[in-house]
Formats: sequence, C-alpha cells, structure tokens
Amino acid sequence: MPHIPLPQHLPGITGLLEYRLDTALPIRELTQILLRGDSTLTQAERELIATVVSHGNECKFCTTAHTAAADLLLGETTTAQQVKTNPDQAPVSDKMKVLLEIARRVQKSGRNVTTELIEQAKSLGATDREIHDTVLIAALFCLYNKYVDGLASVTPSDPGYYATLADRIVNQGYLRPQKGFDHLNKQ
Amino acid sequence: MPHIPLPQHLPGITGLLEYRLDTALPIRELTQILLRGDSTLTQAERELIATVVSHGNECKFCTTAHTAAADLLLGETTTAQQVKTNPDQAPVSDKMKVLLEIARRVQKSGRNVTTELIEQAKSLGATDREIHDTVLIAALFCLYNKYVDGLASVTPSDPGYYATLADRIVNQGYLRPQKGFDHLNKQ
Repeated sequence: MPHIPLPQHLPGITGLLEYRLDTALPIRELTQILLRGDSTLTQAERELIATVVSHGNECKFCTTAHTAAADLLLGETTTAQQVKTNPDQAPVSDKMKVLLEIARRVQKSGRNVTTELIEQAKSLGATDREIHDTVLIAALFCLYNKYVDGLASVTPSDPGYYATLADRIVNQGYLRPQKGFDHLNKQ
Repeated sequence: MPHIPLPQHLPGITGLLEYRLDTALPIRELTQILLRGDSTLTQAERELIATVVSHGNECKFCTTAHTAAADLLLGETTTAQQVKTNPDQAPVSDKMKVLLEIARRVQKSGRNVTTELIEQAKSLGATDREIHDTVLIAALFCLYNKYVDGLASVTPSDPGYYATLADRIVNQGYLRPQKGFDHLNKQ
C-alpha cells in the first residue's frame, strides 16, 4: 500500500505524477527532452540507460516499464535482458557498453565515474554531449526510482500493464496526455 | 577537472546548468516549486532536507551550498551542522527529525522507507503532502548530487563562493537569472 493516498488505478509513477501536477510537469518535460528529444543516442539506447539504472536501484516498476519500452523500440527482448544481467555479452556497441557502465556507476555514486572510464568512452567515439546525457539520464532515473519506491507506490504484476505503458511512452512520449494515465486502464 | 568542457568560472552545478539550457530549465523549475513554492515546510526546513541528502551522497559542492543556504535562512549555523553529524540532538521539531530520517533513507534507497517510519511521521503531525515533498526533494537532490559529481564539476574551496551562492538562492531563488550565474563572479 502506498505511503500516501494515491488513486488505486494508477500504479507506479503514474499516480505520483497525478498527485502533484505542478511538480510533475517539469519532471515530464525533462524526461521528454532527454529520452525523446534530438540526440545521437537512439531512443532505445536511452531507454537502456534508464533500464540499467532502475535495475541497479532495484526499482521493479521502473525496470519493468523501461525494459518493455526498450524491447518495443528494438523489436526484441534479448538486449535489455543482457544489459541487466550479462552486460559484457550484450549486443550493443562498445561505446554503449562504456556509457551503460558510466550509468551504473552514477547509480551507485557520481564519484565512482573515473577519468579512465570517461577516456575509454571518448576513445570509442562518445561525444561530450553523449557523456553528459548519459550521466543526467542516470541521475534522473535515480530520482524516479527513489520517488516510486520511497512512497511505496503499487507495482503491478500483470505483464500486460507494462506492455500498454511501453506502447504509450514509445508512441506518445512522456508528456501528460489530456486524461493523464486514465486511458491505460480503459483498454 | 570536469569530464566534459565546462566554463572554468562556473563551478559545481552552475556550469552544468549553462551547458544544456533546455534540460536545465525543468530542473530549475522543479527546484523552485519544491524549495521555494507554497509549503507547510519552511524554506529552511526544505534546505535542510537538501543538505542531509547531499551529505549522504558525499557531494561536497551541494552539501556546502545548501548548508550555507540553510544557515542564511535560519540566521545560525548550528542546526545544519547538527542534522548532518548529530541528528538526534539537532534543534528541529520531532516531526522534522523523522522527515529528515525519511530523506536519509531515500538517499540510500527508496525501499528503505518503512511503513513504521511513515506512521511515526504522521503521528507527529506530518501531512501526506509533507511526506510526498520530503521524498521528492530527497530524490531531486540525488539527481543533483549525481549530476555534479558524475561529471566531476569543480568544487570551490573558498567559503566566500558558497556565501555568495547562498545569498543568490535564498534571495532570488532557483530560476535562471538573465545572465546565468555570471554575476556570482563579478562581485
């Protein structure tokens, strides 16, 4: 049961983003810019960053949601699974392997990101902007994970819920639809 | 040295917020709403939440900056020092002691916030909104701490720098001044 009263039909982050619309707006906007805005990282790559950070924070709602989003964008389920459990063998570029490792370090502590790791990323072609965005996406998902779990919002067990949510964030993005998240429960 | 090129005269978060103005805007807006907007928590109490979280993440720039902001708002330096090093004896209300403990737990993991701790906060008069805001402020400062340290931005050693920054965030708030942070270095 959530620590504060949240609408029962809006689990995970969805009820929290309806609880305070004024704080939800900049959170949604920041996410839309970072995960859906112009970038030399693909949307799938950025969802993988969200996935490994949420996995590191053991936030089941966010991990499942962003795994489903990455799966939908990639058209397969192997990559998101591998970056969580077997990162060295994951079918992503060497550059992405290092960026995902930077994200994992940020999840634990920003102070764990070493100059050596940054140099490795740059030698594999990572730009300053990609490094910046990797760190900020990782930091943003720490915010989400701590918000979702710190208030004990509900984690649905039905995989169908996450498939619907992934379809929404892949095809409509992170900004608030006119009816909030209500449509997710009306299908 | 920062991991990406940042203006040398803009240390800590200040250079990062000028590096990508589009992502900085919602970060600034969220902070302004949570730390300076209407609340039954005082601005000093909210700065203390930012302080204990930054201290827990060992982010020296943010800890020093928000300690200085809390000190300025309170007109004394004991409280911010105590909430970091001797929280049981800190001169804050019993309700604030529990809210600060919730913030400390969120800093480690949202999953550490127990129903018992929430019940204790409520029994001492904490409202649902205060609990929500405590968790979200704590989550936001995890974002800041990881952003600042994950990109190795510069931490000034001069206490005068933080006094000037504190004066700015107490008296002008968190939104971007017309000239960014440049005025901090022109005094």
